Amino acid sequence: MLETTLAAIRPLDQAAMTAARELHTRLTKPAGSLGALEELSVRLAGLAGACPPPLPDPASVAVFAGDHGVHAQGVTPWPQEVTAQMVGNFLAGGAVVNAFARQLGASVTVVDVGVATVLPEPNPSRLVAAKVRAGSRDMTQQPALTREEARAAIEVGIRVADDLLDAGAGILLTGDMGIANTTPAAALIAACTGADPAAVTGRGTGVDDATYERKVAVVRTALDRHRPDPADPLGVLAAVGGLEHAALAGFILGAAARRCPVILDGVIGVSAALVAAAFAPEAVGAMVAGHRSVEPGATVGLTRLGLEPLIDLGLRLGEGTGALLAFPVVASAVRVLHDVATFDSAGVSEK
Amino acid sequence: MLETTLAAIRPLDQAAMTAARELHTRLTKPAGSLGALEELSVRLAGLAGACPPPLPDPASVAVFAGDHGVHAQGVTPWPQEVTAQMVGNFLAGGAVVNAFARQLGASVTVVDVGVATVLPEPNPSRLVAAKVRAGSRDMTQQPALTREEARAAIEVGIRVADDLLDAGAGILLTGDMGIANTTPAAALIAACTGADPAAVTGRGTGVDDATYERKVAVVRTALDRHRPDPADPLGVLAAVGGLEHAALAGFILGAAARRCPVILDGVIGVSAALVAAAFAPEAVGAMVAGHRSVEPGATVGLTRLGLEPLIDLGLRLGEGTGALLAFPVVASAVRVLHDVATFDSAGVSEK
Repeated sequence: MLETTLAAIRPLDQAAMTAARELHTRLTKPAGSLGALEELSVRLAGLAGACPPPLPDPASVAVFAGDHGVHAQGVTPWPQEVTAQMVGNFLAGGAVVNAFARQLGASVTVVDVGVATVLPEPNPSRLVAAKVRAGSRDMTQQPALTREEARAAIEVGIRVADDLLDAGAGILLTGDMGIANTTPAAALIAACTGADPAAVTGRGTGVDDATYERKVAVVRTALDRHRPDPADPLGVLAAVGGLEHAALAGFILGAAARRCPVILDGVIGVSAALVAAAFAPEAVGAMVAGHRSVEPGATVGLTRLGLEPLIDLGLRLGEGTGALLAFPVVASAVRVLHDVATFDSAGVSEK
Repeated sequence: MLETTLAAIRPLDQAAMTAARELHTRLTKPAGSLGALEELSVRLAGLAGACPPPLPDPASVAVFAGDHGVHAQGVTPWPQEVTAQMVGNFLAGGAVVNAFARQLGASVTVVDVGVATVLPEPNPSRLVAAKVRAGSRDMTQQPALTREEARAAIEVGIRVADDLLDAGAGILLTGDMGIANTTPAAALIAACTGADPAAVTGRGTGVDDATYERKVAVVRTALDRHRPDPADPLGVLAAVGGLEHAALAGFILGAAARRCPVILDGVIGVSAALVAAAFAPEAVGAMVAGHRSVEPGATVGLTRLGLEPLIDLGLRLGEGTGALLAFPVVASAVRVLHDVATFDSAGVSEK
């Protein structure tokens, strides 16, 4: 399934992009006055291979949940069972991702791809049960995943993307939950970009100085132990990744294969996007950077991907919250190509 | 009416703000993880005097349209009749502000407070006809408005705010249309902040170097001629303002008097906000900076007001488009205080 997905990913359609740029010059607004929204709409035309591209609506955020053996190294003050408890909170509709989704007209799908502890099940029918393993292994001691586990998690992500698109989603958004998951995200970003662990490791949910130093050392130790090859993305995921990171890489690839835009949330989504781009560089054409997370690794990763985030408000929550805030911006950018009158049709004089 | 409105503007309610800050510490998310959205929601609690504050929904953008005598000085390549033509486009639903409003679930109200040329009327019933004068005078030659005209335009804005709130709006957004209106906006910002005209004058819809130099000189000439007193906001508006700028100042004051948030669009809204703040400093509590316009005066004005914009995407269109993009962010910030479960209620462990 991974190979079929990779084979389906194509470059952007230059003719559709040219048509969108040309249309922009005829719409009733000064040339270039919509700033970053114009180039975004052009790129989405290229992705869809049509001008205008389809309205990216409705939006579906998939929250992939997993646990991490590296939690044992003391990289976060939060207990591991919070991952399962928050999955319960998502299913009950009580988390910030649910509040944002209600406000913005998006749906939330929760996927257990690797939760280690027992899940509360207030709405079990709404949970996608796709556990590959009850949490990854401690990457400072051994590879976090086998290559087979990493591949299975990727394929969970591809399948979720396909299912959401088959159900009518117009745009996909990355979401994640996993106590300690900024640690493997930092390791993935360092492995994919060559950046130093200290440059890509952040304070996650807000760790103190001692925990932060330990976290940088943990990332460095894991990378020194495994020396993952950035040209082998499956090997990188297996060595220092997490199950939700692998699933998100698949989810992004699945969106790209279907020519559907995917909005990246914060540092977890960006780390998965780097892995996806290592599998298929042209997948970047489907990626929209939702927001600039406080996590330094997110900015390092976005720079490598050549993506500028749409929202920059100091968020560091994850769950898909930053991607959700960007969704109305993306939809509005595309809506311009559908709805706005031309100078000719509206009888408006040009300068 | 202006005096009654000013008398109704009150400071933020500190008890409601304290309650909102305390509630944030109990919600199922790491403390501070929503960045700028947290302080925004706290401020809106203070504005409403309630925690949580009402959901700021539905949104109503009012587009105030006017023309400018200073157009004769060659500050823009666009012909003056484009103001009226774009009013027709707004009423027909064909402008970017309409496209964004449809996408984001907002209504658009178009107000003729000072259009100089004949209006096309595809949907005349949807136009608020409140023309104070057919365009302002050329501020390089004489005051742009009389004090009575400036006051009348302010009261148009107050009345529109009241009408929209009476009709059920939960949040107001500033919008504007007026060929050449970035020139009076720059003059207002310079007059209110003491900044040099060169520091607050921009390229508007995209003028060339020669037009830009002329525009700076025009602003300087007008300020040198009138030397408006920043402590006399009505005098400032009369000397170098525009009818839509004055109406927007009233609109902002009207929102503040009703304890309703008002999202500022770009440089026109910011210039009006500075005037509103000169009338009533506590009106700033009701203001939300929608976006950072490319126009340098917008940033100078926002800095003076102490406001950080929510969106920064290189927009320079006006009409209310930047304010509209910020609306979902504001609504999402408030929604958190309504919908998100507490650690206790959701059974989620704390760190």
